[in-house]
Formats: sequence, structure tokens, C-alpha cells
Amino acid sequence: MSVTAAKGFRAVGLAAGIKCNGAKDLALVVNDAVAAVSAVAAVFTVNRFAAAPVLVSREAMALAEGGYSLPRAVLLNSGGANACTGQDGYDDAKQAAGALARRLGLKTEEVLVGSTGLIGERLPMGRLLAGTHQAVVNLGATEAAGLAAAEAIMTTDTVPKTAVATGAAGGYTIGGMAKGAGMLAPALATMLAVITTDAQIDNPTAQQALEQACRLSFERIDSDGCMSTNDTVILLASGASGNQPEPQEFADRLTAVAQDLARQLIADAEGAHHEVSVTVTGALTEDGALKVARGIVRSNLFKTAVAGGDPNWGRILSAAGTVPPEDAPFEPNQVDVAINGVTVCRHGGVGEPRHLVDLSGRQVDVVVNLNAGPSRATIWTNDLTHEYVSINADYPS
Amino acid sequence: MSVTAAKGFRAVGLAAGIKCNGAKDLALVVNDAVAAVSAVAAVFTVNRFAAAPVLVSREAMALAEGGYSLPRAVLLNSGGANACTGQDGYDDAKQAAGALARRLGLKTEEVLVGSTGLIGERLPMGRLLAGTHQAVVNLGATEAAGLAAAEAIMTTDTVPKTAVATGAAGGYTIGGMAKGAGMLAPALATMLAVITTDAQIDNPTAQQALEQACRLSFERIDSDGCMSTNDTVILLASGASGNQPEPQEFADRLTAVAQDLARQLIADAEGAHHEVSVTVTGALTEDGALKVARGIVRSNLFKTAVAGGDPNWGRILSAAGTVPPEDAPFEPNQVDVAINGVTVCRHGGVGEPRHLVDLSGRQVDVVVNLNAGPSRATIWTNDLTHEYVSINADYPS
Repeated sequence: MSVTAAKGFRAVGLAAGIKCNGAKDLALVVNDAVAAVSAVAAVFTVNRFAAAPVLVSREAMALAEGGYSLPRAVLLNSGGANACTGQDGYDDAKQAAGALARRLGLKTEEVLVGSTGLIGERLPMGRLLAGTHQAVVNLGATEAAGLAAAEAIMTTDTVPKTAVATGAAGGYTIGGMAKGAGMLAPALATMLAVITTDAQIDNPTAQQALEQACRLSFERIDSDGCMSTNDTVILLASGASGNQPEPQEFADRLTAVAQDLARQLIADAEGAHHEVSVTVTGALTEDGALKVARGIVRSNLFKTAVAGGDPNWGRILSAAGTVPPEDAPFEPNQVDVAINGVTVCRHGGVGEPRHLVDLSGRQVDVVVNLNAGPSRATIWTNDLTHEYVSINADYPS
Repeated sequence: MSVTAAKGFRAVGLAAGIKCNGAKDLALVVNDAVAAVSAVAAVFTVNRFAAAPVLVSREAMALAEGGYSLPRAVLLNSGGANACTGQDGYDDAKQAAGALARRLGLKTEEVLVGSTGLIGERLPMGRLLAGTHQAVVNLGATEAAGLAAAEAIMTTDTVPKTAVATGAAGGYTIGGMAKGAGMLAPALATMLAVITTDAQIDNPTAQQALEQACRLSFERIDSDGCMSTNDTVILLASGASGNQPEPQEFADRLTAVAQDLARQLIADAEGAHHEVSVTVTGALTEDGALKVARGIVRSNLFKTAVAGGDPNWGRILSAAGTVPPEDAPFEPNQVDVAINGVTVCRHGGVGEPRHLVDLSGRQVDVVVNLNAGPSRATIWTNDLTHEYVSINADYPS
């Protein structure tokens, strides 16, 4: 159901000719409610080479935070990232936002924009603007419209990603879509995601909930350690249900939707044959557990071993051992490692025989117990396969 | 010529049956000079899961620093890393050092040890000890003996790595060997290296020279971002030339030998089709330049693009953009990128057409000019290929 599941939203996805292959490449999501009952929140990449659409959307969000305007439409394209395109690229993004705003009767700063695709190329603005006009005509509130939007933001994704949840007692709905299969790492670990809700919330509640949701979802997956220039997660609220949820309850439901989308991203990560969870337990702090888990999921040697069905726990420990002691205190000779339930390493040394580990299934669960404290954290990743190399060696440029 | 090029050294490499395939797997390097004119220096991995031989060798070096003894022999094996093997593994390493010491008339703490191979398995001590006895009998000062030692430390290396240089006016000689093809990243970026010299120097001069040499060689290559548990670089000085070089001159010659070995490691890195230099210029500090260069060479997306012959500069900038501003101040819209001499990115935006870049050769030179200061640094790496995945998915465990 995606972004049209919640009341008060219309969406569309179509082929505007931005991609060479004729696939869908342009999506709109529009909140039809008036500003007074609407809310908006957004989280962006922290990459210093933030793409032009990120710069334009950040400006719009800054105005929204100041109370000057309230973004209620999102224009997204695949087929080009509009990143590292200088002033020209910025002007392109601004022009696209302005064109959509005029068609919807909004101000330019009430439109957010997002792009994904190759870095360092201008967008074909003629096709994008013509496609935008066409898209406004085709906006719809149906399930099909929401699905088409999710399809239009795909790049190397093989399936669209959507998720839906309902609030307490069915009082409101949250629905979302996301794309991302490579350049997938915190923070964020996605490329583009739009989530809509008909809950009636204010901007600070929306922003706080979205930050919690991202922290526990998109920022806990890491496919290839590569941070994108275009990462954008947007939450639009229409208030159309009339339901005003308790903020923490709303944040938790939103987190569930974001986690659902995040897991779908990892499951469809470029070339992945295994989905891998790395859980670090027994850490002094959650942050320390996260740092050790991130060290492990960034190891190409660990990830190629998983691809080869090899429970090579030495590569897990050698990666964990690169985390500075001040970041995560532990004693190397106290660390246990279990892979799919077999404790192959005990107290930093040899444990159960590694041949007992079954890696024939798609799911691989690694648990590293630091035996140094009460905290834990999980990062989701995938294996590093021949297909990953093929996809990224041959990505068109 | 390797470790036997300098006067006063003998070496040997043979098959002790540690590897299953019958290849050479045991090497000795012996300094025949008396302690009074000898010197020793060593640099070890900073991985917290340091292998047993690293622990044993560190203890020996601590005693040497205290003036209690002076290590003059090195026992190296491939076919097993003796890492994450607990107290048993430590006892094994100590026993091996003791066995060699007795045969050579040295104290146990006058023998350094190093191992490379699979993590998390005990060494076959019977074969290793028998091989050590045999090796002592076969020690020789010939070129062939030095080459055999270089061959005996190979794992996934396809060729042995050796290098030789002579000091000012030919007054002394430095020769070395190294192995390493994967788990190759600072610090260090090797697995095992032994360098010998007949220069007459003291321990502090040797250590200072070795640290400079490592900083400018092994710590400036990064094949796969994975830090080993066993990295060890050892320098043995026999004083046999009678030549007492000026310390900085010696350090510079030693650095040249280490850089030669380091480049050979990258050239033979697992599955590499391209050798890649990433030079960051215009940085405020050398450390900042290094941090940006390291960010780039750790990007799987950049390295798969090189494998595919794709001058995808967007992946270079997106990797550079992950370095925190406090680590390397620069303005994104001031950054230029040249690939093999073509400035494909100018001022953070589109530069010369990317199709002008020729990536058909083995060498790829990337220059990123931050335009933010006077400093520069280079890191050497290689591309990420199908063969890398094959080698590491199928590495026996």
C-alpha cells in the first residue's frame, strides 16, 4: 500500500525518459491536507558532498522549522543523482521544485525533492519538467498509485520496497516506500524513503519520531560501507485520521515501518546471497556494541567468507580487534563468537568445531559476546559476492 | 637477494608439512654477529586480537629494550596464524622459539617468531619442531637461501617479494622480504616482513628508522581495509660491514626498501587487475590528506568501478565526503579530481568528459586536489575484482 495507505495522500510513478531504458523514473507524493493540520520531518545524508536536491530540501525544512511554510509535496527521480553538479545542478533542483509547486498551488519551498542515480551528470530538465506536468495529472490515492511511486525510485533495486502499519486501535495509518541497493551504509543507509501518515501530529513530534526511527533502522544496516550523497528520508503527516497519538507510541510504530523497509533494503542489496545479522552483546555501552558490530560488517574478508559459506570466525575477531579500546572496552581473551547458534570461539580461542555451522540457508546470525557489560546492538548486512562486483563494475557511467 | 644480501646473515626456507599442499612453509633468518655489534627493531599489529607469535615477540623486544637480551634469529611459518588460540597457542609459540634458541645457542628471548595463515587453529607442533631442526641444518648465506625464505612465508601471494638497497658509497647493504596479499591494510599493511642490514647501528637508531620506514610504506598501502592479527615487521642489524651510517641517511635507505616491498604487496594483492595510487593534494595537513585518501581507498564502490574500467569520480567524491570536516577541512565546491591525468571533476562539479579517461592499463592514478592547503599524501591500493571474491570466499578453513 505504500505512501497511499494513509488518508489524505496521492501519489504517482511514471516513466519520464530520465532513464535510458524506459523504466519508471519519476514519482510524486502529495499531502492534500491544509498546512494547519499537516506536519513534516526529514533526515538527510551527512556526506559533505550533499547533492543539489538535498541542499534544496534542507532549505525548505529550515523554513518549515521557522514556521514560514510547510512542505506538503515530494518530487523524486531516479536515473540521475544531481550530485556534484555545482550551481547548475542546484538551479535545476530548484526549478523542478518550483514547477511542481506552481502546478499544485504551493510555494516552491513547500516542495521537497530527491534524486538517485549516477553522480556528476546534469538531469535532463526538459524531460523531467514535462514528466512532472504529466505526473500531476495522473496523481491518485489508489494502492496502484502508491506502488507505481515505489517502482519509480528504483535503481539497481530488483523489487520495490513498501511497508504499512496501523496505530493503536487502528486509529491511524503509517505507510512508506524506500529504494536503495548499493551505496548503502549509515548514516543513513538508504537512498530515498518517503513515509506518510494520517496521524495528527506537530512538526517537532514528527521530527523526533523520524530521528528515532532512522537511528534504529536505516542507521543499523550497512551493505557496502559507502555513504551516499543523496540519502533522504521524509515523513509527511496529513492529520486526516483526526487521531492524535501519544508521541512515543507514534514513534515506535514509525520505527517498525522504517525497520521493515530497512530489512527489505538489505534483503535486496546488490548481489546479496545471504542476509546477515551481527549482534554484539555484553558490551559496556550500546554505542560500544554498535562500534564493534560496524567494524565487523565493514570487513570484506568476513563478507566474502559468508559468500563462500565459510564460518571463518577469525575474520570476525580480527575485525572486532580494530575497534580502539576506548571506544569499546573488552578483554580479547573473554570474547565468544557464535555463528548460527554454534559457539565456534570461546574466550577468544577455539570453541566448537567450525564444520558444525550450517551456512546453507539465506539467513546468517552472528553473535559476538564481549563479556564486558550489559549492552547490546545489532547491525544488518549482507555478503560480498561476485554479483556485487559485476553490478558495480558495470554500473553505467 | 632478500635477507641474505647483507653480510652476517643466513636464512632458509623449506616445507615442514604445515601447509597441506607440500609447499614451503617454514623460514629462518639468523644474524650470526655477536650481540655487541648487533641491533634489532620491530613493529607489530595494533589489532587487539594480536596473535600468539606477536605476544611472544613483543615480550622479547621489551627485554631487548631493557638491555637484557638482543634477538638475533627469526622463526616464521605460513600455513597457520596461531591467532585466537588462547594459552595453548601462546605456549606453542614460546616452545617453538625455545627449540630454535637451543639449536642456535641463544636464549629463548633472543628468538622472534611470526606466523601467517588461518586464524583460530593450533599449529601442528610436531611438524613445526621437526622442520625447525631440519631448517637449522640447512641455513645458508646464499641468494638461493634468501629466496627460499621469502617463498616459505607466502600464503595467497603468487610471487615472493624481496628488495635490496645499498647505503651511501656502497658502505652497507639493506635487504628484505615480505609476504601479504590479503588482510592488507594499515596499520600495518602487510603480514610478515624481515629486513636485514650489515650497517652498524644501535637499537634506538634501528627502531626509529623502522618506524619511519613503516609509516611511509606499509602504512600507506591498503588493499582491503582489513587489519591483520599477525602483522610483524622486523629489522635485524649485524654490523658486519663495519659501516656506521648517519641515522637519517640509514632511515631513508631503509624506507626505500620498505616502499619497494610495499608496492610489491599491492601489485600482487588478491585478485588485483589494477594498481591504484590515490594522491590527495591541497590539504591543510598531511594527516588530513591521509584521512581523505584512506576514505577513498576503502570504498568498495570506487574499487569495483576501477575493476570495471569506469572513471566514476562521483564515487571518489562521495567517499571523500564521509571524512569529518574537523579531520580534513575543505570546501566541497573547491575540490578537483583527476584520473590518469584527466580532470573529470572541477570545483566539485563536472569537469572534462569522463570518456577521455583511459583505464585500459594496469596503473591508475587518482589525484584529488582539496584546494585547502599545502599538504599532500598518497595511498596505494588495488581494484576489487571477481577474483578477490573467489579467493576469499574459497579460502580454506
